[in-house]
Amino acid sequence: MKRIVLMMVAVTAVVATVASSSPVSGRMDEAASPIYGVTIPPGYRDWKMIAVAQLKTDKVDQLRAQLGNEIAIKAYKEGTIPFPDGSIIVALHWTRVASEDNDKVLAGPFPGAQSFVVGSPVNMQVMVKDSKKYAATGGWGFGDFKDGKPADEAMHKACFSCHEPAKDRDFVFTRYAPF
Amino acid sequence: MKRIVLMMVAVTAVVATVASSSPVSGRMDEAASPIYGVTIPPGYRDWKMIAVAQLKTDKVDQLRAQLGNEIAIKAYKEGTIPFPDGSIIVALHWTRVASEDNDKVLAGPFPGAQSFVVGSPVNMQVMVKDSKKYAATGGWGFGDFKDGKPADEAMHKACFSCHEPAKDRDFVFTRYAPF
Repeated sequence: MKRIVLMMVAVTAVVATVASSSPVSGRMDEAASPIYGVTIPPGYRDWKMIAVAQLKTDKVDQLRAQLGNEIAIKAYKEGTIPFPDGSIIVALHWTRVASEDNDKVLAGPFPGAQSFVVGSPVNMQVMVKDSKKYAATGGWGFGDFKDGKPADEAMHKACFSCHEPAKDRDFVFTRYAPF
Repeated sequence: MKRIVLMMVAVTAVVATVASSSPVSGRMDEAASPIYGVTIPPGYRDWKMIAVAQLKTDKVDQLRAQLGNEIAIKAYKEGTIPFPDGSIIVALHWTRVASEDNDKVLAGPFPGAQSFVVGSPVNMQVMVKDSKKYAATGGWGFGDFKDGKPADEAMHKACFSCHEPAKDRDFVFTRYAPF
C-alpha cells in the first residue's frame, strides 16, 4: 500500500511538471494561440450567423462570415455591451471566387451579373471573452488559426491594438446583420 | 337552441366561403408566395449558415448568406441528394456597403484595404422541399420576400427556370462552405 501511494505521488509530480512547463510566451500547447492560449472552439461551424463581410486588399480577396456562440448571439440581440464572459465570436475567412456558372444563369434576370462564392478557407479568428483572464486586453483573448494551427506570436501581438478603435463596441467590429 | 344552431351554421358557411376564396393564382394569403404558397419560416435568422456570397450587377450590389433548417444542413453535411422533404433553405440578401471605419483600421496590416459590410436587407428567398406538393418544380416551392411581403406572380414564375441549370445538385446552387 505504501508503495502504491508513493508511486501515485511520483506520477502526480510528473504530471504537475508537464503542466507547468508551458513557455513564458503563454503558448499552452500546439493547438492554442500564443499569448492568449485560445483554442478553436468545438462545434463553431454550426453556430449562428452574426454577419457577413468582404475584404479586398493588395494581397487578399476574401468573403467572410462571423458566427457566435449562444452567449454572444444573445448579447448581440439584446445589445448588451460589454459582452458577458463566455462570449465567443469566430470569423471565418475564405478566398472570394468568381462563379461563371452563376453568372450564366443570372445573366437573364441580371444583365452584367458578376457573382462570387466562397473558395477555400484562408484562416479563422476567435475572440473569447473572459474579463479576468484577459483584463489587459479589454477582456478578450484572441486566436488566429490556419489549417487548425495558430499563427505566430508576432501576429497575435497585433490583435488587440487592431481592435482598440472599436472600444465603444467592446472591441468588436462586426455588427449584427439585420433581417 | 334551434336558433343558436342555425346561426352557427350560418357563421360556418361564411367562414368556409372566405377560406375558399383564394384566387386561382395560388396565393393562399397575403403572407404566402404566389404559385407556391410558401411563407417565411419562423426562426430562420437563427438557422445554421450554409455559405456566403456576393452579387454585383448593373442594378444591384449585394452581400448574401444562405442558411438552412436542420434537415437541410444535415443533408448538406452528408451529401444527400435530393434533399429530403422538409428541407428549407433561405437566402438573405443585403446591400453591400463600403466600411471606411474598417478601412482605416485595416490600412496598417493590409495596405490598400477595401472592406465591405452588410447594409440593409434587400430581399430574402425561401426554398421548401416537398416532393409531392411541388412535383412539377423539382420538388421545391419558392418564395421571394421583401419587407416580409411576397413578390408578385411574374417574379415567382421565374424561380424554377432559373434554378433548372442546377438540376444535378437538386436545383440548389449554393454549396456548403468548407471550414
